[in-house]
Amino acid sequence: MEKIKRKVIGEPLKSSQIKHEKFSIFRGLPILSSDAISSVAYACEEILIVLIPVMGILSYKYLLHVTFAIIALLCILIFSYRQTIDSYPNGGGSYIVSRENLGVMPSLLAGASLTTDYILTVAVSSTAGVAAITSAFPSLLEFRVPLTLLIILIMTIGNLRGIRDSAKIFSIPTYFFLFITLLMIGVGIIKYLIFGYVPTEAVKTQMASTAGDMTLFLFLRAFAAGCTALTGIEAVSDGVANFKAPATKNAKRVLGLLFAIVVIIFGGVSYLSTIYHTSAGGDRTVISQIAGQVFGQNSILFFVMQFATTLILIMAANTAFSDFPLLLSFIARDGFAPRQFAKRGDRLSFSNGIILLAVSASILVIIFKGENHLMLPLYAIGVFISFTLSQSGMVMRWVRTKAPGWRHKAFINGFGATITFITLIVISFVKFQHGAWVVIILIPSVMLVMKRIKRHYTKVARQLSLDNNYFPVFNSNAAKRFIVPVGSLNEAVIKTINYAKCLSDDITAFHASTDEEETARLKEKWDKYEMGIPLVIRTVDYREVVNPLVEFIENGNFRQSKKDMVTVVIPQFNAEKWWGNILHNQTAMFLRTTLLKRRNIAVISVPFIIENDYASGNMEKVMEEYTDKDCFKAKNNCCDKQDETQETNKLNN
Amino acid sequence: MEKIKRKVIGEPLKSSQIKHEKFSIFRGLPILSSDAISSVAYACEEILIVLIPVMGILSYKYLLHVTFAIIALLCILIFSYRQTIDSYPNGGGSYIVSRENLGVMPSLLAGASLTTDYILTVAVSSTAGVAAITSAFPSLLEFRVPLTLLIILIMTIGNLRGIRDSAKIFSIPTYFFLFITLLMIGVGIIKYLIFGYVPTEAVKTQMASTAGDMTLFLFLRAFAAGCTALTGIEAVSDGVANFKAPATKNAKRVLGLLFAIVVIIFGGVSYLSTIYHTSAGGDRTVISQIAGQVFGQNSILFFVMQFATTLILIMAANTAFSDFPLLLSFIARDGFAPRQFAKRGDRLSFSNGIILLAVSASILVIIFKGENHLMLPLYAIGVFISFTLSQSGMVMRWVRTKAPGWRHKAFINGFGATITFITLIVISFVKFQHGAWVVIILIPSVMLVMKRIKRHYTKVARQLSLDNNYFPVFNSNAAKRFIVPVGSLNEAVIKTINYAKCLSDDITAFHASTDEEETARLKEKWDKYEMGIPLVIRTVDYREVVNPLVEFIENGNFRQSKKDMVTVVIPQFNAEKWWGNILHNQTAMFLRTTLLKRRNIAVISVPFIIENDYASGNMEKVMEEYTDKDCFKAKNNCCDKQDETQETNKLNN
Repeated sequence: MEKIKRKVIGEPLKSSQIKHEKFSIFRGLPILSSDAISSVAYACEEILIVLIPVMGILSYKYLLHVTFAIIALLCILIFSYRQTIDSYPNGGGSYIVSRENLGVMPSLLAGASLTTDYILTVAVSSTAGVAAITSAFPSLLEFRVPLTLLIILIMTIGNLRGIRDSAKIFSIPTYFFLFITLLMIGVGIIKYLIFGYVPTEAVKTQMASTAGDMTLFLFLRAFAAGCTALTGIEAVSDGVANFKAPATKNAKRVLGLLFAIVVIIFGGVSYLSTIYHTSAGGDRTVISQIAGQVFGQNSILFFVMQFATTLILIMAANTAFSDFPLLLSFIARDGFAPRQFAKRGDRLSFSNGIILLAVSASILVIIFKGENHLMLPLYAIGVFISFTLSQSGMVMRWVRTKAPGWRHKAFINGFGATITFITLIVISFVKFQHGAWVVIILIPSVMLVMKRIKRHYTKVARQLSLDNNYFPVFNSNAAKRFIVPVGSLNEAVIKTINYAKCLSDDITAFHASTDEEETARLKEKWDKYEMGIPLVIRTVDYREVVNPLVEFIENGNFRQSKKDMVTVVIPQFNAEKWWGNILHNQTAMFLRTTLLKRRNIAVISVPFIIENDYASGNMEKVMEEYTDKDCFKAKNNCCDKQDETQETNKLNN
Repeated sequence: MEKIKRKVIGEPLKSSQIKHEKFSIFRGLPILSSDAISSVAYACEEILIVLIPVMGILSYKYLLHVTFAIIALLCILIFSYRQTIDSYPNGGGSYIVSRENLGVMPSLLAGASLTTDYILTVAVSSTAGVAAITSAFPSLLEFRVPLTLLIILIMTIGNLRGIRDSAKIFSIPTYFFLFITLLMIGVGIIKYLIFGYVPTEAVKTQMASTAGDMTLFLFLRAFAAGCTALTGIEAVSDGVANFKAPATKNAKRVLGLLFAIVVIIFGGVSYLSTIYHTSAGGDRTVISQIAGQVFGQNSILFFVMQFATTLILIMAANTAFSDFPLLLSFIARDGFAPRQFAKRGDRLSFSNGIILLAVSASILVIIFKGENHLMLPLYAIGVFISFTLSQSGMVMRWVRTKAPGWRHKAFINGFGATITFITLIVISFVKFQHGAWVVIILIPSVMLVMKRIKRHYTKVARQLSLDNNYFPVFNSNAAKRFIVPVGSLNEAVIKTINYAKCLSDDITAFHASTDEEETARLKEKWDKYEMGIPLVIRTVDYREVVNPLVEFIENGNFRQSKKDMVTVVIPQFNAEKWWGNILHNQTAMFLRTTLLKRRNIAVISVPFIIENDYASGNMEKVMEEYTDKDCFKAKNNCCDKQDETQETNKLNN
């Protein structure tokens, strides 16, 4: 097992090797924006899926309206996040912001919605990535799910190895996608305006039909659907700390650039899909349809486009792989998540968090059969909860700090908060039966769990605190009263007893008899090998040893007062081959776990290694380990005791 | 957890409560024959599925031929099994027979094919049972799989509770099925011959078409398909021991009856399906089609018939639930399967075997989406392997024992062996690409695993045997050299150290420092509370404690020779709520398991219970347990040591 692990995730790294690469703008932009940019790949489609069935050909007109609305919202977000960046130069994720300014429950709400969101990011982005592939190679459609899982697996391994900080690799796909998309938009527009390209019939016919009339509700639904384009905006304000000085300045520049890019690409793509009459919700993504018409179906550039889309989507998923474990480690440090998540793994990555993320995302993908469209509704809600929280957090902050110009700053954030909150309401309302309800149940339950965990840890801390001024002390005679449970007499038992004899001279062997013959054999051997310690035998009704043993300890006049600690000594088998250990009745393990549930029974485990390459001959090999060979043949008794040698001879005859 | 378990499978039973109900013929027949009889429910269908597509309307003629062939084969089997019964009054399953007469590998082959078969029995029978239901209520078709799993679950629980021996309940469904089937056959024939009933068009039309010509290969395929009718024959010879005296006589009578029943029912059903022109492979089983026409669609009797079929099929599956664990326990006792399978559970049933069976069967059902037709090919092969083996085993036996008339007896078994062997070849050949290949890969691999397991156990036995005359003895000074790994100083650590002090006065605390502050805090507390034992601090590169500790033990001049045992003492947290334990870094557990992999490090676990209902107030509650309250406030030192009280006072100020 260990070997495989090493092969897959590599040799462990020293704590000192942890390094935080600082981003220049050029490097920071692609890493922090891939999520936001990539979401464009499905946003338009989501809007059209809502519109087309009702509005038919008219959808394209309204697609633009919706797009404008979303861009407006984005604008507001950018403004308020610029302020967050100013106030949180060390990174102001909504968890931190709301914990600092709104208190525990809101921060948990933020934590819960962010975590669920990161999971969804992975699921959604990798699915979308695969969708881009399958639009290019429809024959792969049936392998959608396994493909997605494979991608997730690869990302998991990569992140366990700790590729997190390697900015170079990551910047390439993003810029690559940017370039090719801009190219597509440019060519597309020219092709249409100048060469008067007419969208292929194939696509047009799909929606000759109905043209219902635009209702507010429909518009809101479309808007809600499109809001997925805004995911990943707050990544920048999370990552301020990673920027080269002047950090905040650079971060804000990146945020600005991000805004520009999203506007251009999102706007551009939705404009193209209006003029190229893309259909939505089919086997081929909107982008692939556009690319197909712009660059020509099956042209190299078409495939390049699909490839680029896949890549950036994977990058987007990957951001979650670096942010989720980090967030979880914050939460864990505050005691709201299991401590294990705050611990860095062999490769200095928060391995547990990574694994949790991968597993949950994979489950989602399987449940939703790789249908992106089904997962996206769950997505938006979390995003907007955290938007709202971090904005309102900022408002509280301004009000508290009364920093110069706090009024108008508070207003900006307040405005942002209000808008995002309204959007949140809209989304949860219009998407309720499309799956939003899942999140609305999920998030509170996650919060509940977090609270429970915290309560537990507090309890533990209180019980462990020395301020209880409670220093138990034990009667060493009782502690020295050893009990060795014995099934049959064998090497392991003898080793155990001989070890025990080093620590105490008040040892009792205990045998729970389920089968007369067995017991008889044991007794006989016991005398033959002159074990020299009392063997207590209890015939038991049920086929298990633990209860009789406990019974014996508690009720046998074994200790005067409950405050005494007694000691049970058990041999612990250990096969060299991992599967070996499955093959032994796990009595030892079971004994220990059950006994340790009681306040005052200590358990000594004495190892007995079962070698794999054991041949009757190579007892020598074992003996090798021991310097003084004679010492072996000694009676089961401690070296430092006398009367050893003659006893030995007795045995050898 | 425990509570739930008790609710579901009931209170544990005393070993003494084990009882073996002896069967009269009347009781024995239904229990041992349900499998064989029930297989009729799908045998005809399987034959028709092969014939109809090729032969169309002619199929029915050949159905009868195939039926005759199979009955002939059955006849031979019955004869040879009568002899097995004579020679194995304590039950001669093919595993036992072949182990005794053919040696290890053949017995493993038998074991492997039987085990796989029992699993298939459960999968196939319960699926067929559900098929009977769905033919009556087609609306349930889509819930086929969950229904099947539910049935398996119920049987599992039932058998874990140990319903095994309750013959009474079981006899009813079988007789019930017998009665209603005979009724159907009777009425069916009369309706046709006397009242000249003409099969409903609905059915007829389905196969107006093609009439290809009969090839040998087609016939063999049909024959192979039909052979599923012969499953469960050997149940009788397995169960001889369970008969009232004269056991063998009764067993043979039952075998005779079984033969008669199968002939009548199987023959009858296939005759009916010829005259009633049943279709095959559709949503409605052959039997249900016949019943539909004989008793009238949706007549009460029709539903009764379906119900009876379901019941007997469940009974059949249930036989596997009693035979499989038993067989596995034999194999385990011979050391070819994990010991756990030889151990009776709380309710005296071989719980592990039952669970293994249930799980594997459920997996099969899920994989094959509850399509019986897909599983049956896998089925027949195992059956005929074990037939062949037990027969040839018998031959060897005759040749060896030379019992009176052994020649002609050997001939009978030999003939049986040959025929079954030929059938085996035929089946594996004609069904190879229909899934038989799975079994042909599966069985040998199961055998391989069995051999590996055996080898392991032999190794263990050799290493444990006292004949090695190897009695290690240890230097008690080394053994008394205790190491207590310490992260931070808290109640648990203090309890641990205080306990340790009872056993040794040479204790070293070991701290692997990953974080300066933490370490500083520890040092400070260490002095404040006057721990009075040396604290060794090692700064570590990797974020884990085990290796540095081992390093320290092995290379620190800690023990003179490798033969010395040293002792590590670790506090073991234990939350009252099960989920509590997930929340602690599992370092203790990890430490123990890793340390115990080395030959000469013993591990003492000192329990520290984390109460769930702990409130700062109720330290008293804990103290309650202790008789003498003052003893607490003592310095971390053993009661029986002196200088206690004044130390105490020091602390309290």
